[in-house]
Amino acid sequence: MPALTIIPVEGIGEVAPGDNLADLIAEHAALENGDVVVVTQKIVSKAEGRLVPIDPDDPLSHKALVEQEAVRVLRRRGDLIITETTHGFVCANSGVDLSNVEKGYAALLPIDSDRSARRIRDGLKGKAHVDLGVIVSDTFGRAWRRGLTDVAIGCAGIAALVSLQGTADALGRILQVTEVAVADELASAAELVMGKSSGVPVAIVRGVDPEWLRDASVREELVRPPAEDLFR
Amino acid sequence: MPALTIIPVEGIGEVAPGDNLADLIAEHAALENGDVVVVTQKIVSKAEGRLVPIDPDDPLSHKALVEQEAVRVLRRRGDLIITETTHGFVCANSGVDLSNVEKGYAALLPIDSDRSARRIRDGLKGKAHVDLGVIVSDTFGRAWRRGLTDVAIGCAGIAALVSLQGTADALGRILQVTEVAVADELASAAELVMGKSSGVPVAIVRGVDPEWLRDASVREELVRPPAEDLFR
Repeated sequence: MPALTIIPVEGIGEVAPGDNLADLIAEHAALENGDVVVVTQKIVSKAEGRLVPIDPDDPLSHKALVEQEAVRVLRRRGDLIITETTHGFVCANSGVDLSNVEKGYAALLPIDSDRSARRIRDGLKGKAHVDLGVIVSDTFGRAWRRGLTDVAIGCAGIAALVSLQGTADALGRILQVTEVAVADELASAAELVMGKSSGVPVAIVRGVDPEWLRDASVREELVRPPAEDLFR
Repeated sequence: MPALTIIPVEGIGEVAPGDNLADLIAEHAALENGDVVVVTQKIVSKAEGRLVPIDPDDPLSHKALVEQEAVRVLRRRGDLIITETTHGFVCANSGVDLSNVEKGYAALLPIDSDRSARRIRDGLKGKAHVDLGVIVSDTFGRAWRRGLTDVAIGCAGIAALVSLQGTADALGRILQVTEVAVADELASAAELVMGKSSGVPVAIVRGVDPEWLRDASVREELVRPPAEDLFR
């Protein structure tokens, strides 16, 4: 296995509705074949115009939006609401976000975050003339463990799950089902160079196993259907 | 933010009870100040002699071990048992593992995985004369999402959680509580160069924010106490 490099893409600045993210990324990054470009949900939502006005002095204004974006409420405690979104994601506040958004507005998740990733990828392929993968990432909490990690909410041209089922391990034993959520691990790796306040909304992961570069979908591969989920 | 590099450490080979992991790692890696060394649980358990004989032809033999290592069973479905371990980890089979272990044996989690990380770190500081962080990682499933990711089960000299509470975001707004589980993200990043069958049980993350290099504990920072957990 060669080394991986995680490169922050600096200088993208504020993103506004209608901005072409592929153009912005291609301008600020020297992309190479086989790169995986991780783009945070916030700028994807902004570019796609997923901003809605709220009353910043009225918490109910935000809460109404959270319920509107949810197909199911899993838990409530105080101000915290854990919901399932239309995409099938389980997260706080239906992914409706107020930080890094202009006062008086909230950012909603992209309507179809796999499609968002595909659109950015198609743009980058046309603009930078390279073949690569794109992940749209967001910052979610987890059950059982404190703290947030970045996960993939959309992907294109890069595997979401890689199955090691049936691969022999180092001792020659056949491994049982081992499906690794590589898109989530790539999103987490990218977060390490982004920070939350540093204004770095994009990172490149260079050196990814070329076998992982294939058509894929977060929604189809990573979202666990409620029927097979033991914790919903 | 500078770039991060994730470097696989090759050539460590099979690890046996009593082996000194710090010596093995120092022999096979050119460590630098500020590196974070991620070591998979499997070789930590082996070096610490956490191997117990089981009857490979009797599934009950494995199951008895899983129950012995659990303080609580959260869910059962078919052969799958989700338990809480003595450490407070919620995972499949109490972390008792048969893959990459000699036939007829199972590997248990280290008794105190933060202490395991500290011991490796102390050894590396003495041997390689560098100051660095150490994470012990394991591969866990999650609620709501398919696939496994590597998380931190122990750490030393590297933050488990980094709080961005109160830091101004790029628009000057004060962010609400944002606590990032950087030790889990580092473990996930490291997994990307390890694979499950490639015999690479250690990786180095180089270029981590120096402010993250501090005393820390997975058990104290990342394990969510049952009383504050909405999903237990």
